[in-house]
Amino acid sequence: MKISATVTLKKDVLDPQGKAVNQTIKNMGFKNVTDVRQGKYFEIEIDEANKEKAKEIIEDICKKLLSNVVIEDYIINYK
Amino acid sequence: MKISATVTLKKDVLDPQGKAVNQTIKNMGFKNVTDVRQGKYFEIEIDEANKEKAKEIIEDICKKLLSNVVIEDYIINYK
Repeated sequence: MKISATVTLKKDVLDPQGKAVNQTIKNMGFKNVTDVRQGKYFEIEIDEANKEKAKEIIEDICKKLLSNVVIEDYIINYK
Repeated sequence: MKISATVTLKKDVLDPQGKAVNQTIKNMGFKNVTDVRQGKYFEIEIDEANKEKAKEIIEDICKKLLSNVVIEDYIINYK
């Protein structure tokens, strides 16, 4: 089963990487882009038929490895 | 309007970053994770009411800045 996890900075955490991308986009002439926030994306292949069980495992991995829960949020999606 | 763009390496391009994450997950004891591929995620706020027009602009940005079309794919989603 393929599951994706998207890790993004929480709303009130500054995102200098996103700001830099936003500025570059503006400099390229796309004037109507107002904000960019960047995150990480993981596509995880897991050998587990039970959807709920698989999601639980991925959530565990997100908490322990892929994200810093103090400043980041994660979203899990089935592919 | 909020639009997200996910940039991932094409299927046949080696992903050492994903491999490293996969190995770490295995070392942590999650034995049923078989593959991990990592990508970039962008959340873009755009001042454009027309959905199609907004998507076109984001696609342009993806091609010119956010992705390397030779080795990467991008997916655009409305939020």
